[in-house]
Amino acid sequence: MADKTLDTLFHDTLKDIYYAERKILKSLPKMQRAAQSPELKAAFEKHIGQTEGQIERLQQVFDIIGKPARGKTCDAIEGSLAEGDEIAEEYKGTPALDAGLLAAAQAVEHYEITRYGTLKRWATVLGMDEAVKLLDETLQEESQTDEDLTKIADAAVNAEAMQQAA
Amino acid sequence: MADKTLDTLFHDTLKDIYYAERKILKSLPKMQRAAQSPELKAAFEKHIGQTEGQIERLQQVFDIIGKPARGKTCDAIEGSLAEGDEIAEEYKGTPALDAGLLAAAQAVEHYEITRYGTLKRWATVLGMDEAVKLLDETLQEESQTDEDLTKIADAAVNAEAMQQAA
Repeated sequence: MADKTLDTLFHDTLKDIYYAERKILKSLPKMQRAAQSPELKAAFEKHIGQTEGQIERLQQVFDIIGKPARGKTCDAIEGSLAEGDEIAEEYKGTPALDAGLLAAAQAVEHYEITRYGTLKRWATVLGMDEAVKLLDETLQEESQTDEDLTKIADAAVNAEAMQQAA
Repeated sequence: MADKTLDTLFHDTLKDIYYAERKILKSLPKMQRAAQSPELKAAFEKHIGQTEGQIERLQQVFDIIGKPARGKTCDAIEGSLAEGDEIAEEYKGTPALDAGLLAAAQAVEHYEITRYGTLKRWATVLGMDEAVKLLDETLQEESQTDEDLTKIADAAVNAEAMQQAA
């Protein structure tokens, strides 16, 4: 049996994030419906389109390594999304709902950021230039989404939660 | 029944990260034993001490809000740590083991970074200056740890994995 090398690890991690992205795509409409502010609803809407593009890029990376695009259960994203569901349920109709949804969404973003950062570094070491480009495009998008969510959180949601709490 | 506000959310999220930090503290010695390179073993060793300090800071934040320091199951960290265990088992004795452990450790770091970032922002809105200071100290430490792990990954682990894969 061949030793497991960086190629194996790259493929395993690609399956992990592929599973995660498809799970996220399924969860986003639910988070969008749960959100109260129009800004947060719009941010989730935008991210649905981005996630579809990110899934397509992952399929291109699977093509590059000559493997079928298949996911592998990712416990970390299951956990993060479960926490988001819990917030949506426990804080429904309260002033802190959007702040909670934003925090859950940012936990998901950070999982994606760390995974794409790792995959991009490994693709570089493995000399897969086209994969590096695809992974970097998604990494930039995810970092931008995280910044956008932080702005929404700072500008509107936290202030609103405080106002209602006062 | 009082509405759930940003204070409630802050307290819930504090319990989430308190649970996560204590789980991480339990997992670190196992990751340290699994690591192959002396650099990675040393990084895990250092992070054990840091995590103990971070748990103490969280206990101070519980004091500030006048609540007992208690955790609440955090599914996201359970998932991330389970993925780390899986890597340690599946890649044991292979050239890619350390790269996999590093990736798992960075996923954990990013979860902490997003949680501390969120808690710090909320503490700011809630006017809890001392808590902001404590949360920021940990946030800086976690960001530095993530950078250190990236350096170890770039400098040694990936190159080693490639060398052995060649």
